[in-house]
Amino acid sequence: MPTITLLTDFGLADTYVGQVKGAMLAIAPTASIVDLTHAVPPQDIVAGAFLLWSAVEAFEAGTIHVAVVDPGVGSVRRAIALATARGDFLVGPDNGLLVPAGLRLGGITQVVELNEPTFWRVAVPSASFHGRDIFGPVAAHLASGVPLSRVGQPAADVIRLALPAPEGPRGEVIHIDTFGNLVTNLSGADLPGTFRALIAQRTVPGHAYYAAVKPGELVALVGSGGLLEISVRDGNAAEMTGARRGTPVVIEAVSD
Amino acid sequence: MPTITLLTDFGLADTYVGQVKGAMLAIAPTASIVDLTHAVPPQDIVAGAFLLWSAVEAFEAGTIHVAVVDPGVGSVRRAIALATARGDFLVGPDNGLLVPAGLRLGGITQVVELNEPTFWRVAVPSASFHGRDIFGPVAAHLASGVPLSRVGQPAADVIRLALPAPEGPRGEVIHIDTFGNLVTNLSGADLPGTFRALIAQRTVPGHAYYAAVKPGELVALVGSGGLLEISVRDGNAAEMTGARRGTPVVIEAVSD
Amino acid sequence: MPTITLLTDFGLADTYVGQVKGAMLAIAPTASIVDLTHAVPPQDIVAGAFLLWSAVEAFEAGTIHVAVVDPGVGSVRRAIALATARGDFLVGPDNGLLVPAGLRLGGITQVVELNEPTFWRVAVPSASFHGRDIFGPVAAHLASGVPLSRVGQPAADVIRLALPAPEGPRGEVIHIDTFGNLVTNLSGADLPGTFRALIAQRTVPGHAYYAAVKPGELVALVGSGGLLEISVRDGNAAEMTGARRGTPVVIEAVSD
Repeated sequence: MPTITLLTDFGLADTYVGQVKGAMLAIAPTASIVDLTHAVPPQDIVAGAFLLWSAVEAFEAGTIHVAVVDPGVGSVRRAIALATARGDFLVGPDNGLLVPAGLRLGGITQVVELNEPTFWRVAVPSASFHGRDIFGPVAAHLASGVPLSRVGQPAADVIRLALPAPEGPRGEVIHIDTFGNLVTNLSGADLPGTFRALIAQRTVPGHAYYAAVKPGELVALVGSGGLLEISVRDGNAAEMTGARRGTPVVIEAVSD
Repeated sequence: MPTITLLTDFGLADTYVGQVKGAMLAIAPTASIVDLTHAVPPQDIVAGAFLLWSAVEAFEAGTIHVAVVDPGVGSVRRAIALATARGDFLVGPDNGLLVPAGLRLGGITQVVELNEPTFWRVAVPSASFHGRDIFGPVAAHLASGVPLSRVGQPAADVIRLALPAPEGPRGEVIHIDTFGNLVTNLSGADLPGTFRALIAQRTVPGHAYYAAVKPGELVALVGSGGLLEISVRDGNAAEMTGARRGTPVVIEAVSD
Repeated sequence: MPTITLLTDFGLADTYVGQVKGAMLAIAPTASIVDLTHAVPPQDIVAGAFLLWSAVEAFEAGTIHVAVVDPGVGSVRRAIALATARGDFLVGPDNGLLVPAGLRLGGITQVVELNEPTFWRVAVPSASFHGRDIFGPVAAHLASGVPLSRVGQPAADVIRLALPAPEGPRGEVIHIDTFGNLVTNLSGADLPGTFRALIAQRTVPGHAYYAAVKPGELVALVGSGGLLEISVRDGNAAEMTGARRGTPVVIEAVSD
């Protein structure tokens, strides 16, 4: 049975995440469920889309990813499931949350609107908790082998959401992680061989690993997701630079 | 093998939750263990009882719920396990924590005092960690098929704890969730067809879903647990109203 | 299949923990993975070593523990796996993090340096995320039955790290837990029959359990890990005493 992952803005202080898992295990008792994170800032679809994007590639093809950051729950926004070129499934609200992850997994090859209550927890779902009542149960049915074409009708398109894109060497901070690393939207693959990064009135040398600079010094390197990151060796770059999501970052080639 | 759930006030900064799971997996290596929450305010039995109540219905009948909010650990308070009418088990301290959940699952049909050390982690448990040494191991044995009657002696009764009850249309806030939603003790089933809620000197219109009001506005609706909740669309009702646990809420019918 | 545990300083706000699990499940799809904690203070190897030490004994012999607190990632520090006398495995960076846990599990009987890329996620790991790219995958292969001798070359020794040791009756606070309990490095096994503890200009009576003192009073007792702890019944000893990690604690025998 494929793994099911779960990413939400539910936090861990309530039992919402547990309830989603209960609803899934009632359908697929042997499912292996992995938390990606539940600390997406409340209702921040762009942050959720980035975090989902950051995680999906580490999982085997065929994994089912459930994501719920859903300010439109109970309104007319559609519930959807997507198939990717790599053979994964993405399940959640049609608000753009799933799209960057789908593109990272080779592209979106199929879209269905979840309008078959047979595969929900109850025929009349709550107005505010589709994670438990629709998305989780549908994912559990997909994990159990129900084909995507049965959980809903084909949909022509989805609501698009693009993560902020760089313009050539000019990008921005799109995420600040637990360690204070400033994750940018600049792809490591596009960097010059030798480079420096300009951010928050500082010039940061580019290197291959933290240990190329002294403890406490800034360094720009390609992070584990393939994006340029600004870090401090043994320190916190967000605190040192004052940078935030959206702070501009510019790359300059350095002649050797 | 049935699912085992875990709800505690242990937090996630220590390894206490992991130790309980280790003790359970040593007995039932293939058990599926789900966290409900570990963020119950320390030693707050009423808050723990509400959170356990909120979660149990989402799980399939036959699930084993372990809950540990246990200020009396090491004293004379009893360790107990309960069976419910629906076929679930609840394991934890005899301080009222398990009772509201038991009632939600159809009522408590059997009570045993956990006094058979054969089913504990060690014959002499620690004075402060019965989650690891008694409750978790007993739950793992129940999951493995040991009958309730073997893990202890029948007990005549348990210590009762009732969540705050409304008086007709007058209730109160009993939980504030991650999103700042104010969960009340007023049952959605008892509401008039058209209503408004009075809370913290504000009048809040009743609706079926968030999108019935504009972003930033207060709305009263039936939440995913079947209780009336006061929310702000795309916002935080606790911050906007200043309401806390215990703040009164009154329902008024509105003539159509 | 043995359980795999995971202890890191990754926090839960990012998807790093999820990515490690994805990489492990890609290799060992039926592995049972348990979180010990991910709230080790960033890059605090000593705190991580204590927390790992605190947890391992609760797990069955043969468990595979992965720990990642790794300020030297990407530098020359080695990646290692250890076998213990009890039959467990410990996988992580060679910076001392694994050593106290290894000693608690009967001692370290075998050490290999992880230099066989066959057992990694990719042949060229990222410079900053060996949890996902090396440690997790190696642990999953060990869980699947690959012998320790195949995942790397024997290594003569590891970098040692000792938790702060007491001098006779003079110890110190080595951890403050979620409840504000002050965990010391004084072994419960070495205590006089009747004793008191001196800490932060206070004299604290020794007892066997919390309920021996009144609510709100300090008590010294042997905690669930076998170490002396200073607690407040139904309260928070860290807040009441102002003690921190490193605060001295002295034991005095009391004549009966």
